[in-house]
Amino acid sequence: MAKKSKPQEPVPVTQPLTELLRLPAGPVDLGTLDPAATTGFAGSKADAPALTAALQPELSDLQERLYATGRAGLPGARRVLLVLQGMDTAGKGGVLRHAIGMVDPQGVRIKAFKAPTAEERRHPYLWRVERELPPPGIIGVFDRSHYEDVLNVRVNRLVEEAVWSTRYEEINAWEADLVASGTVLVKCFLHISSATQKERLAARLDDPTKYWKYNPGDVDERAKWLAYAEAYEAVLERCSTQVAPWFVIPSDRKWFRNWAVAQLLVEHLRSLDLQWPPADFDVEAEKRRLALT
Amino acid sequence: MAKKSKPQEPVPVTQPLTELLRLPAGPVDLGTLDPAATTGFAGSKADAPALTAALQPELSDLQERLYATGRAGLPGARRVLLVLQGMDTAGKGGVLRHAIGMVDPQGVRIKAFKAPTAEERRHPYLWRVERELPPPGIIGVFDRSHYEDVLNVRVNRLVEEAVWSTRYEEINAWEADLVASGTVLVKCFLHISSATQKERLAARLDDPTKYWKYNPGDVDERAKWLAYAEAYEAVLERCSTQVAPWFVIPSDRKWFRNWAVAQLLVEHLRSLDLQWPPADFDVEAEKRRLALT
Repeated sequence: MAKKSKPQEPVPVTQPLTELLRLPAGPVDLGTLDPAATTGFAGSKADAPALTAALQPELSDLQERLYATGRAGLPGARRVLLVLQGMDTAGKGGVLRHAIGMVDPQGVRIKAFKAPTAEERRHPYLWRVERELPPPGIIGVFDRSHYEDVLNVRVNRLVEEAVWSTRYEEINAWEADLVASGTVLVKCFLHISSATQKERLAARLDDPTKYWKYNPGDVDERAKWLAYAEAYEAVLERCSTQVAPWFVIPSDRKWFRNWAVAQLLVEHLRSLDLQWPPADFDVEAEKRRLALT
Repeated sequence: MAKKSKPQEPVPVTQPLTELLRLPAGPVDLGTLDPAATTGFAGSKADAPALTAALQPELSDLQERLYATGRAGLPGARRVLLVLQGMDTAGKGGVLRHAIGMVDPQGVRIKAFKAPTAEERRHPYLWRVERELPPPGIIGVFDRSHYEDVLNVRVNRLVEEAVWSTRYEEINAWEADLVASGTVLVKCFLHISSATQKERLAARLDDPTKYWKYNPGDVDERAKWLAYAEAYEAVLERCSTQVAPWFVIPSDRKWFRNWAVAQLLVEHLRSLDLQWPPADFDVEAEKRRLALT
């Protein structure tokens, strides 16, 4: 699926990624989704850094408009929540660094969800997630999320099936409320192949500057690849709704993955038709007051 | 003081900004510190974007090493805290966007201190600041800080002089503890002229895309310029210590300001001689385990 053409000039996306990468309804078989695809990308690997950087001015403008509506306290101010999920080494960190790193850090709140703390365990699983929702005008990014409660929790049998199996519908209802109350939810599954994961783990073991990224537990989790794939298929099939669809980001190629998430974010922000907040003061009167100082 | 030379190639800083911009001991008169200076910058305005961007690779490498030591839980893992203070429009937001924006957002925690909440008011003034200190491996950035408790609080007489006047020594003792326990503290005063502030406020009133940045209260605060200048002079004179000096960043020129803060951050990180954490597992054994998967 990777396009081989090398255009001399950056070519704009002709069909939005919000359509191209949106998971269609129906049964999901990860084996049929190509993790090395470069869907919608009009160029080759060599074009990727320039095409990704070319998104920055618009991303920057849109994010500032979003931020402005939040700061101005406009009643309709939106929130954006980008959810990143994927197998180990799929590149959540890379997306944060290269795509989210293009956004003014004042307008971004990143939350990485780890194993729940003792306090978090005393609450329903959505409690800690609810607390981390972005305020109006802010782009929140979840590095892992409530989906771990039907992924890691399911695969490692941390609760009984009778418990986790009810969560898909709960999550759908919770996300529908979130969207109804003005949050733009962008759920990205970073899809890699098992072979790519093996390569990336091997690279960490081959390079002393990457030892810190490696954990022996990664190999233990890798041994559960099929169980994780099954759990992801259930998530994608049952929790890709009309109001909160999943986007499948082919992530074997890092350069495509980073571009695609940035492009998806731009498309979502663009669709909000964000306007600069009007003055809530008398502009001419303020000019006169300032002139007197 | 602005250098007029236009070198064809980016020229490295010959003397560190940690020396050039470090406030010397002794009485401080803001009137004698040129807010339009470009101290240590080997180039002109046109060179600034390239010279600033040229810092990114080293900044990125140093930040990742810092982050790695924190993630690896090394006992000596350092924390970095950048404190940004300055009059309204001095450019704290611009520094966050353009200098801190060059750093991987996963390794940065930005905290903007506003008027204290009801809960914060029930605690000593350093309580809310203490809670926002960066964890090991992280670069914390304070957009305003505990210094507001001897700036805004002093100028607007929010507590009695008998209260605020004891705070300088308290702050010095608190910061000395912070540094002794492994935090690298980089305190930047963004220094602008009164004329520059007036221009920047006027620009916000002239441009509908900037109305949201303007608040009529800004003119009220501007009327207290001299009182603020006096309060800043007291801060700079009394709280620039051997272990936690103030750096005065001439900030009338935005391009110099952004470069200077990024350069200062690089110099501080460089001085830590950050090493990649060693493997805390058997590398060869892990390679064999991975190969079997």
